[in-house]
Order: sequence, then structure tokens, then C-alpha cells
Amino acid sequence: MSFNTFGHMFRVTTWGESHGPAIGCTVDGCPPGIALTEGDIQPWLDRRKPGQSKFTTQRKEPDEVRILSGVFEGRTTGTPIQLMIENTDQRSKDYGDIAQAFRPGHADITYHQKYGLRDYRGGGRSSARETAARVAAGGVARAVLAALVPGLTITGYMVQMGAHAIDRSRFDAAQIAENPFWCPDAVMADQWASCLDDLRLSHNSVGAVIEVIATGVPPGLGAPLYAKLDSDLAAAMMSINAVKAVEIGDGMAAATLTGVDNADEIRMGSNGPEFLSNHAGGILGGISTGQPVICRFAVKPTSSILTPRQTVNAAGEEIDLITKGRHDPCVGIRAVPVGEAMMACVLLDHLLLDRGQTGGLRGQIG
Amino acid sequence: MSFNTFGHMFRVTTWGESHGPAIGCTVDGCPPGIALTEGDIQPWLDRRKPGQSKFTTQRKEPDEVRILSGVFEGRTTGTPIQLMIENTDQRSKDYGDIAQAFRPGHADITYHQKYGLRDYRGGGRSSARETAARVAAGGVARAVLAALVPGLTITGYMVQMGAHAIDRSRFDAAQIAENPFWCPDAVMADQWASCLDDLRLSHNSVGAVIEVIATGVPPGLGAPLYAKLDSDLAAAMMSINAVKAVEIGDGMAAATLTGVDNADEIRMGSNGPEFLSNHAGGILGGISTGQPVICRFAVKPTSSILTPRQTVNAAGEEIDLITKGRHDPCVGIRAVPVGEAMMACVLLDHLLLDRGQTGGLRGQIG
Amino acid sequence: MSFNTFGHMFRVTTWGESHGPAIGCTVDGCPPGIALTEGDIQPWLDRRKPGQSKFTTQRKEPDEVRILSGVFEGRTTGTPIQLMIENTDQRSKDYGDIAQAFRPGHADITYHQKYGLRDYRGGGRSSARETAARVAAGGVARAVLAALVPGLTITGYMVQMGAHAIDRSRFDAAQIAENPFWCPDAVMADQWASCLDDLRLSHNSVGAVIEVIATGVPPGLGAPLYAKLDSDLAAAMMSINAVKAVEIGDGMAAATLTGVDNADEIRMGSNGPEFLSNHAGGILGGISTGQPVICRFAVKPTSSILTPRQTVNAAGEEIDLITKGRHDPCVGIRAVPVGEAMMACVLLDHLLLDRGQTGGLRGQIG
Amino acid sequence: MSFNTFGHMFRVTTWGESHGPAIGCTVDGCPPGIALTEGDIQPWLDRRKPGQSKFTTQRKEPDEVRILSGVFEGRTTGTPIQLMIENTDQRSKDYGDIAQAFRPGHADITYHQKYGLRDYRGGGRSSARETAARVAAGGVARAVLAALVPGLTITGYMVQMGAHAIDRSRFDAAQIAENPFWCPDAVMADQWASCLDDLRLSHNSVGAVIEVIATGVPPGLGAPLYAKLDSDLAAAMMSINAVKAVEIGDGMAAATLTGVDNADEIRMGSNGPEFLSNHAGGILGGISTGQPVICRFAVKPTSSILTPRQTVNAAGEEIDLITKGRHDPCVGIRAVPVGEAMMACVLLDHLLLDRGQTGGLRGQIG
Repeated sequence: MSFNTFGHMFRVTTWGESHGPAIGCTVDGCPPGIALTEGDIQPWLDRRKPGQSKFTTQRKEPDEVRILSGVFEGRTTGTPIQLMIENTDQRSKDYGDIAQAFRPGHADITYHQKYGLRDYRGGGRSSARETAARVAAGGVARAVLAALVPGLTITGYMVQMGAHAIDRSRFDAAQIAENPFWCPDAVMADQWASCLDDLRLSHNSVGAVIEVIATGVPPGLGAPLYAKLDSDLAAAMMSINAVKAVEIGDGMAAATLTGVDNADEIRMGSNGPEFLSNHAGGILGGISTGQPVICRFAVKPTSSILTPRQTVNAAGEEIDLITKGRHDPCVGIRAVPVGEAMMACVLLDHLLLDRGQTGGLRGQIG
Repeated sequence: MSFNTFGHMFRVTTWGESHGPAIGCTVDGCPPGIALTEGDIQPWLDRRKPGQSKFTTQRKEPDEVRILSGVFEGRTTGTPIQLMIENTDQRSKDYGDIAQAFRPGHADITYHQKYGLRDYRGGGRSSARETAARVAAGGVARAVLAALVPGLTITGYMVQMGAHAIDRSRFDAAQIAENPFWCPDAVMADQWASCLDDLRLSHNSVGAVIEVIATGVPPGLGAPLYAKLDSDLAAAMMSINAVKAVEIGDGMAAATLTGVDNADEIRMGSNGPEFLSNHAGGILGGISTGQPVICRFAVKPTSSILTPRQTVNAAGEEIDLITKGRHDPCVGIRAVPVGEAMMACVLLDHLLLDRGQTGGLRGQIG
Repeated sequence: MSFNTFGHMFRVTTWGESHGPAIGCTVDGCPPGIALTEGDIQPWLDRRKPGQSKFTTQRKEPDEVRILSGVFEGRTTGTPIQLMIENTDQRSKDYGDIAQAFRPGHADITYHQKYGLRDYRGGGRSSARETAARVAAGGVARAVLAALVPGLTITGYMVQMGAHAIDRSRFDAAQIAENPFWCPDAVMADQWASCLDDLRLSHNSVGAVIEVIATGVPPGLGAPLYAKLDSDLAAAMMSINAVKAVEIGDGMAAATLTGVDNADEIRMGSNGPEFLSNHAGGILGGISTGQPVICRFAVKPTSSILTPRQTVNAAGEEIDLITKGRHDPCVGIRAVPVGEAMMACVLLDHLLLDRGQTGGLRGQIG
Repeated sequence: MSFNTFGHMFRVTTWGESHGPAIGCTVDGCPPGIALTEGDIQPWLDRRKPGQSKFTTQRKEPDEVRILSGVFEGRTTGTPIQLMIENTDQRSKDYGDIAQAFRPGHADITYHQKYGLRDYRGGGRSSARETAARVAAGGVARAVLAALVPGLTITGYMVQMGAHAIDRSRFDAAQIAENPFWCPDAVMADQWASCLDDLRLSHNSVGAVIEVIATGVPPGLGAPLYAKLDSDLAAAMMSINAVKAVEIGDGMAAATLTGVDNADEIRMGSNGPEFLSNHAGGILGGISTGQPVICRFAVKPTSSILTPRQTVNAAGEEIDLITKGRHDPCVGIRAVPVGEAMMACVLLDHLLLDRGQTGGLRGQIG
């Protein structure tokens, strides 16, 4: 990973600012011969699209993706795939107030300090709008994974909003698409709805925890020691706007376990070794075990709120600042498809790396 | 980061297995003209060295580092610095039992599945012994940072063992070096000692949480969007053996905050902007703010325990396995200097990247 | 360099096919605060543009570049700069004949063998049209170099067409812009014109040698040993379509010299050391000396010719093939601005790398 | 490629100075399960070893390689392979004269200007001694290639010394090992011998041209556009000390051809398409055609000569300098095994890249 590129072999380079003419990405290293049209990518973008419920920003961005290269007669050619999404619903005037002022919790001050200037409109390059490019790239990765590893699934959902975590005993995957929060717990989804209503009225926002799980991942993906599967997942998730923590398997809770409890014991199943638990989140020594790969990340509350906060401006004057505009009260919601996309990209990247180095052959057990 | 290399400009490539003749690393991209001898690196290795208290493994590895290249007449030349540590206290016979069996919680099974073979002695490449190479590289990074950013400090310590977290009100930095746990809370250190005694008697182990804090970090380090400072820290910490989670600033707890609480408000101090809090952990938009950079990571309990666990062997037979050998009951303890080393490497890497791209000039405030 | 990206810090990723909707590139790692508009880039594209004389292809591509990101209010922001050029004059029907046939000398057969399919229209990804993206990136690099190293100049010209080399004693830099061949020797330019007229009538084409020279390059650019300045220049030039050789300084002729003749002797000038000759082409040990950096490359003759050549098609049938279309009889002509662009990108990349690693300070002499 | 690392997937990082305790390299990304011992690598080092005839330096370096990691029970494990060669025959006192003086044609002045200091003993990092590490890495690459592509061969030889080129009509591969020049033309070998005798007596040296040819290379290796097989070969060869030019296929002579002559026409053979000529040197569009891959490079004359040359020292004083020591009168001779090693590394790297991206499947013809 370097600057605006991530991935080793399946490499994604994103570009674009929130209020420029367009955003997009170049997907390089894609296997050839994979069926791909805009129709394979658009549904993933639609899931991330703003304005789908009253709980996300009311901006209206159609987020229509165009494939500008790398696909011929409906199949990938192995050459770079350029994906472009035009920016359409820009109200740059909303941002005049922050041209010279630094919104607390935002990248305004650090971009100013690093670069000496910044495109302040809508957060410019640091806008969560960039994540649309990730979702588009993830759509490509999903199409390739579907061809190369047919059984593999990737599912993201919210497991916590503020202090309100789901009840795992009520976990129902079918619920995820049934509420505006990607929440697998229908009871909690209702609670979050009223919680968010209150927060909006009080000009406030809240954080969240997202979980992304991949099943059907072949064993053997990952590479010691600085391209470990979990290390790359950590980088990928932490690179998403507003993410402050990443967990694999039991995550922070692993610290509280004893070795006896933490050992994922192994028995032989009909198709090879089977683990009796999955504290490891499907990764041992940086390499996939064949169990579900489980990753969680925490998203901080939206920093753009209507409650005034103390800050300074470029002239060094102390001011109070309200962030106007149409903002998500819980950006975590729209981070769900983004986390899925990053999981897809990382898994595919390691699948290609693995078959490059090892030929994809596997040590036998039994 | 790729395979066994990490870093963009200050690049570290590690090599070696636990029971081979030696381990080491190549440090490439180091600035020239920096005073450096083995004496600058050895003290950091000594802090990580096993056998320093009854609470860590009783192996006796002197871990003496030799500089084989890249330094001339006591100064770095800008060419690659090769650091080698010979392996001396190897009892490979301890490992005969696991030549064909997979220890739960270890990388044995995934290395077998990926590569078809593995150096099983002491965990081979997946051994925590590799972290000695990281600490050595960190020693070089510290020497460079001391020359380029004199005020910068990096301090690691344990903040939790099992369910027992320190009491932040008792935090005393002076205590860190006074107990075998790098614990800043003297009361908790005593508690951990008796806790570990019990665990050893019951043939068990326990996890931990480490915090690493860097002060005096200049603003402006980091790069959007996939080489963010926090993204690179997450990758670096997650690449350490047994780490299952990484937090920046408030980390997972950021999910529970509201936007009003999470905003690190800003006032003007005598030397420029000052933040009234540090929920962000010194990083906004992937770029350092000038506040302390705060990173935490969770280490799972040592998987090598004397309590038998169910597993299988390469022949596919179901067996019970006890892991003999001289193991740390809480590997988290020795992860403290490793976390510090990774912080040093990542910060220096971004310092060089930043002055490469921007010239190190800073946008003025006030 | 990897797949479709080149550069270490100043990184260019190109995308697009000859007959797709557009081509372009992402320029990442650009220093911030540099004045940049389309008007700084377009003139370089205009120099490469086809149809400027009867000696280049008669396609009419306006090659208008648009900046889609990374520039705000006329200055670079340090974030990725997306440059897009729409494809307008496409006659895809010209290419029906080669959909299933492999033109000798072209990448048709290798793309087919590697990827199993290809966008055959106009050569697809392997078309020289991709070089427009390089020239656009080079325009950005030139703008940055102008700001950071004001005296630096980069000049390309043709020194040989077929067997006809220029007479160095007639070298006149002012002539380069005065003929359609970027030829510094007015007499030879006339000769080349009649030579090309003959070749076209006989349905043939011819190769060429291009020289690119950079003056005012600071000493100290380059890095041992696999990111040497000459190594990166060699990769950059060899990556241009149809290039078959790269020379630095005396190049192949260095083999014929003795050590006594080859030594570029050094004396002290008023501004430090001065070399009495430049066999080395401004690079010693992979690092710039401060002398002019001199690079040459050979371009093979255009493979698209109207003379039938023996080949096979995807069905394995032996056929004779004429390549219709509007082709340059000497693609070397239009490679001149491309070579300049690659030189600009490589020099800037190393300038940033150098100030990253060393801070740009220089060992004194005298 | 970056600093001291080359390769995308099969990555080699070299380290070490001529007169330090050792030199070596880390080979990362090597496929697992390949039979490998020091005995597979040493023969290649012995071919490069100095002192094998009166025509190379009389230094006595045994160049014994040790494998320190990455190999277990005689097979590669897929983890980094550390190769170390101790430096034994060092006469550092030979170099006192150049501690503060800059030998013309050497990297002394550029290292000084870039880094402000240098290990002047034997050229330090810029010594051709570093190429021993390349040859060792090439030995690993050859072992892997032998396992993955059994029919592949790599052969290097000298085709020109000074103005004396071999007569291709006398080319006899069996001669290559029969003379101290790796010369396939027995008549020319005799001529070179007397030529070199004269040069030594006159305290002079001479340049050379090396050709490296690989047969049995599968079609499909290479990647557009900046990781082309020829682009990577150009970088690899140009990174060798003293190399000033790289040619693929017809190389510089391609400029003199017409399109009719240059077209490598294709017919169907019993095993698929066959080319009637090989002007392209086995590479079209950056991708291997299946024909022999042919690469040539020019090596400048040894800069270390006993004839005094004008230069300056660090104090800025003008001096005359004789370079004492035991130097090769034609360094090109020992560059032959180095060129072979680089070819092996590049081909293997692309083999792994290709099977990573495409799965190694090939588009059918016929």
C-alpha cells in the first residue's frame, strides 16, 4: 500500500474529491476473462448510496458507475479497469464557512498543516465520498471471486450503535437487508431508529461497530509477515474514513481469555480438519484457516454536527463552528458496504498472491 | 508492505527462523550520516530479551546484534543496514512432538496448508523470535528519529492482563521500568504477578493489551488514503505475532461516543493550535495532528500451554496435544518493546515520505 | 514499478485502450502547492498529437486533457491528480480484419496467449495511444520540476532514422522545433523527409533513435542499487511501445572504449567540480553527477504496414495480412515527446526520493 | 524495484559492502517445496569468482555462500531465504589513497555528493562485489525454474570486447565454457587474450558486450505497461555495475530496419505458432512470445586503472590519481554470470506474477 493505492497484485488506485467533477479508481492486476459489466458493480454502489432512508444523508447522488477501460465485449481483459462516478449533487456553497476554519474531528487541520492548502468543499479528498470508489472496486473483486471461488460469501452488518450492541442470540442474517441499519437483530434495529431520531433532534451523532464476515475462504491465503491476511485487513479497514479500531476474531476480547479457552481445538470432519470454535477469526499466523474470516471495526461518530464546537481558523482566531450541510448522523451505517468491499479486495488480492507463489496447491491433511 | 518487507521509504525486510543459525533484517532507505553502533541497538533488544524475570520464558538468548553493512566509521552511509542476531539457545528436540501435529492457536496448520511443509522447530518463521529483528530495526529508527526530531519520545506499556486493566488514575510513567510487566500502575503490577503465578500452576496463559504512545510527533505525517498513518500503524501492529486488534485513540470505544463528545476542540496556544482532548489519538484523516499518537493492541494468550488440547496431525489422526518447552505465560509482556519498535519504524517512514513529497514545509496557522 | 504503475514516490498509473471511451492516468504523490492547469499540460500533448505533418498518422485526435482531481483553485493539493483524455476519432471498423488474426510485430499474439482475449480495436491496451497519458503525466512532472529546480531543462530529438544518423557537427538545438522530425540537423531533416516519402510509397516503415537530454539536474539523484537513476530510466524508456534498446551516455559504444578514454576527468570550476567529458551520461554508480543526463533509445519500425506479411489467426490458419488504417511510417517521431515525459517523471521521482531520504543536503567538495 | 530490492513477487534485497564483514541478500516470495542446498547455488558463484584466470582480478575470494533461513530439510519453505557470503580477502590499505579523492568513472563522487560520506574501501556499496549476491539469488531462481519449467535454459556469453565482436558464423555454444571469456567464438577468444595482455601492460582496460539468451520461456510472461518483461530486464541489467546500455532482440539495430524486414512472420508448427525470425528478441508488447528471449548489455571499461587521471578530492584540490589494487582489466567478463542471474530472477518473477494474475492458462491458437 502506498499513497492512494492498495493491494499487492489486485491493486486499486483511487482518485477524486467530493466536489470535483468525478471520483473513481483504477483496478489493476484483475484476472482476464471474467464477465463484468456496470450492472455487476452498480448494485453494490446502490447499497452505499446516500438518501436511502431518513437515517442517512439526504444528498441525492445517483453514483452511476462507468467502466472506461479494461473490459471488452463484457469480459475483463487483464488490463487496468477504470471506474468513474460523476459527482452531481454538489452544494459547494454549504462549505464557504469552512474554507478557512478547521472543523473539529475532521481532517481540515491536518490537510492544511501537511499540504498548506486543501479543497475544503465537502471535505475534498478526505470526504467519505471516496469510499464509493472502494465499493466500485469491491464490485469488481466480487465478480472475480464469484468466478474463482464460487462458494465464497462476504456479509457486513452493524453490531453496535453507540452503547447499544446487538443481542447475538437474536442474530438473524435475513434481517440485515430488512432495516436501514444492516442490523441482524430486528429488536435492536427499532431501538437504533429511535435513538437516531433523538440524536438528530439534539444536533448530535453517534459511532458504530461494523462486522464483516467471509465464508468459504480457502485455507492458505496470507503471507508472512508484513503481508499477513489480518495485517492487510487491518490496514484496509483502518484506511476507511472515521475508523478508529480493527478487530480480528475475538479482537480486543482476546486479551481477556486464557490459553485454554482461546485454543480453537481441531477435529477431523468429512472434508478435512474442522475447528470447534473460531476465536482466531479464521486466521492463524496471518494465513486463512478455512474457517469464516471475521473482522470488526469501530467508526467514530460523524464529526459534522449542528452543535457548535470550539476551534480555530487559518488566521489563528478562536471561533465556534457549526457544521451545516446534509450529514449522516451515524456514518457507520454507510460504512457497511465499504467494509464488505475492502474484505473482497483483500481476499482476492491474497488469492492471486497465493496462487502466484505456491501455485495454489495445498499441503494435505489426512 | 509485501511479504517480509514493511515500510515505504524506511523499509525493513526480516528473515530467519526460530531455530535456524540466525535471524535478522535489512534496513533500507535509512538517512545517511546518523551516528549508529551496535550499542545504540542492543539496549532495545535487551528489553525484549527472554529470561529477564520469572514471568517470561526461561530460554537464554543473548540476542547480540551485529551490524554487517550500511555503517561506516560509526555513521550510517545511506546504504542497506544488515542486522544479524545469531540463535544460540536452541533445544530443537523439544519440538519433535509437533513435527507432524498442529498446535491449536498456532500457525502450524496454516503453514502446512499453504506451503505443504514447515520448519516446525520452535514455530520456525512464525515464531515470536522474529520480533527481535523488528526491535533491532526499531533501534535504528530511534537513532534516526533522535537526530531528526529531537523531542520525539516513544513509550510502550501494558494496560491490561486478562480481565485486569490498570487504573488510569494511578498511571505513573516512572513505574513502567520498575516491574517485569512494563506496568504504569504499581498496584496492578502486583496483582498481575499473583495472577500469572496462578496461571502457570494451572498450566494456562493469558492475553494482554499494550499501549504505545509517541509524543513530539510533528503534524503532517501520514498520507491519504491507503498509506494513512493510522492505517500503517494498524498493519504494523497487526503483523506482530498473536495480535488480534488494533486501536487508535479511543479505538473501539469511539463507537460509543456522540459527535459532541468526540470532537477534540481546538484553541490557540502559545505555539499554535492546541487540542482540548485527544479522542483521535493524534491522527485526523490519516495525518498526525501534533498531539500524542496513541495506539493500543490486544495480544491473545500464549497458545503453547501444558494443558492438553484436542487437535489433529498431518496424517489426519485426532490427538490430544500438550505443548512443552519454555514459554511465556503472557506473551503480551514481551510485545511491549516490539510495539515501540513498530511505532518508531512507522513514524520515521512517514517522516521521510512527508519530507519527500512536501519538503516538510507546513501550512501556517495564525 | 508494477503492472500499470511506475515511479516510487511520484507515481503514475495509466489506464485506457485505443478505442475505448477515454484514456488517462492518475498521478499520485505530487508535491502540493504547485501552480497547475490544463494549460500547463496541453502544450506537451499537442506536440505528440497525431496529424501534425504528412509524416505522422492522419488520425485527428484533439487529445484534450481534463484534470478531474487533485488540483484546487489552480494549485496541486498533494492528492491524486486524475488526467483524462477522451477518445474521439475512432474507426473501429478498420480493425475487423485483425479481430482473430495476429499482426506480425504487434502484441496481438502475446495478449491472446496471455489473457485469452483482447480488445483488438487499434491495438487496445498495447496501442501507442497510451503514451498520451505518459505525456500528460510528464506535463505535471515538468510543472513541479519548474518550481523545485528552476534551471532544469529536458529536450528530446531524433538522431537517427533508419541508417541515417545526424551529423553531430551540424547539431543545432534551434532546428528541433523547425521540422516535423524533431531533428537538430537541418540537412538530415530534408533527407529524412524524402526517405519517408519513399517508404510510404513502398508500403513500408522505418525505425529511429531518439535522444533525450536533461540539463541542470542536481547531483545526488538516484539510489543504489535497483532504483538507480539509469536503471529507472532504462525501465521507463523500454516501457514505451516499440522501444528495443536504451543507452545512457556512450551506451553500447562504451564497450569499445578503453578505461583511459572513458574516464570523465574532473577539475574544479567556479561552482564546484567540473567534468572534462561526459561518457557517463551524467550518471555514476546510478546517481546523477550534475552533468547533463543523456539517454537514447531505439524505436523499431512501425509494424502496421500495407505490405502483406505471413501470419496465423486464432484458428491456427496460416494467412497473409495487410495492416490497414492510418499509421505512422516512423513511430519514432512521435516518441520524442514521450521520451521527454518519461525523463521528467523519473527525474522528479528521484528528486522526491532523494529529499525524503537525505533531506537534499549535499556532501561538500572544496 | 525500490532502493536495494528488485522483483515484484520473487523479490531480492541485497546488502553489504566490499570490505565489510559480509555481503548477501534476502530472497522473498520463493515458491515452497523446491529442493535447495548451498550446493545448488555455489557453482554459479564459482563461475563469477575472481582469480580464475590471469584475465580477471587476482583477489582470492572463496565466495562461499551460506543459507541462513528459508530452507528446511533441503527444501524451500516459502519464507525468506537469507544468503550470506563472508568477505575474506580484504586489503583495505589499498584504498587509503581514495578515502578523500574521487576516482574518475567511479561512484566515489556521487556517493559523496548524495550521502555526505561513504565507505571508500573497495568501492563500498558501489563495488561490483555486490553482484555476488545477485548471482546467489539467481542460483535460487534457477533451482525454482528447473522445477517449474523444466526445459528452460539461460546462457550468457561475451560477444564483443572493445571493438572486437565475435563472428556469428563461428558461434559455437560448446566453446563458451572453454575459454576465460565465456566466448562462443574460439578464434575471437584468442584475439581477446592478446588484446587484454596488451591493455594490462599499458595500464589500461576495455569495455565489453554480453548477451544472455533464455530458451524454453513460456509465452505469456510480462505485464503491461510498466512491468513489461523487457522493461524489467532493462532495469535489471542496467542496475549491474558499469552497464551503460541494454538491448532486446535487434536492439539499437532495430532503428535501421524497415517494417517489412522487422516483421517476425508466423507459421503454424507442430506445437503451435512458430516465428520465422526473432528480431523482437522473444518479446512483443512486453510479453514473451515463446521464442528465445535475447538480451544484450554493454559494460564500460574498468575505471580502476594504473594510468593517472585528473580528478579532485573532497577538499576541492585538483590531483592526478592512479587506482592501485587488483582490478579486472575487463569487468565485462565477470558480468556474464551476473547477467544470467538477473535473467533468471526476472523470468521467475514474471512466471509467478503471470500465474497469480491469469492462473497460467493460455489462449489457444489452432
